[in-house]
Amino acid sequence: MHRNLLNTFVIDAPSDARDETVSFWAGALGADATATPMPQYHVLAEAAPPNRVVVQDVGSGHAGVHFDIHTDDLEAEVARLVSLGAEVVDDSWAKHPGQWVIMRDPAGMEFCVVNALNPLRPQADRDDFERRARVVG
Amino acid sequence: MHRNLLNTFVIDAPSDARDETVSFWAGALGADATATPMPQYHVLAEAAPPNRVVVQDVGSGHAGVHFDIHTDDLEAEVARLVSLGAEVVDDSWAKHPGQWVIMRDPAGMEFCVVNALNPLRPQADRDDFERRARVVG
Repeated sequence: MHRNLLNTFVIDAPSDARDETVSFWAGALGADATATPMPQYHVLAEAAPPNRVVVQDVGSGHAGVHFDIHTDDLEAEVARLVSLGAEVVDDSWAKHPGQWVIMRDPAGMEFCVVNALNPLRPQADRDDFERRARVVG
Repeated sequence: MHRNLLNTFVIDAPSDARDETVSFWAGALGADATATPMPQYHVLAEAAPPNRVVVQDVGSGHAGVHFDIHTDDLEAEVARLVSLGAEVVDDSWAKHPGQWVIMRDPAGMEFCVVNALNPLRPQADRDDFERRARVVG
């Protein structure tokens, strides 16, 4: 048995528009933008509680939004999502300290599956996972 | 004074992948998919409460995700977002019964601003707006 939780909505910001993207969405959503220990992420606190809204610097990538699905069993959850029709785009990050896998839904939309129990994640996020995650497989 | 609320995350599904997108995300998020009176929308109930996750048939458009920001003053909120750096993509829908405006953030990401008080909207959504919206301008 394992669990998942769709708890993070990530605004993808190309590097050359990162600062104005953070500033625009902080103003738009009446949220405080906070830098994080991972320099590519800014959290927009209280933008859509209890879910999280984060701006991610995606380098030369495109502006957009993607979902982060957290799980307590990365391997099992990726396998389950593949069985439902998703594809793995890049699982090399599963061995990275951040521990996530990039996937693509049946229509081609990319999303991430993230190890919620990674001790490097903020304690508040891990607590939120414990409170709200659902058994899915 | 007016208020807004980022309360809906919309999965854009091209028509030819609409059914498998609804079915995939219902399974992925352990959510019940419900058709709505507007045939292009399926609600994924309880996918990310209290926020709503909806699959929208976008015809020949691309797979992706966009934000719907609800507000009790469409004109004032669009003007405020323009002053923060967004652009109006299409405001012809403001006169449509659904009453929304399509905008683009400074990096080019599209999103919608929706009249939360439209009497055609589900009562539960209007109640949710009353409970959670914040004064932004």
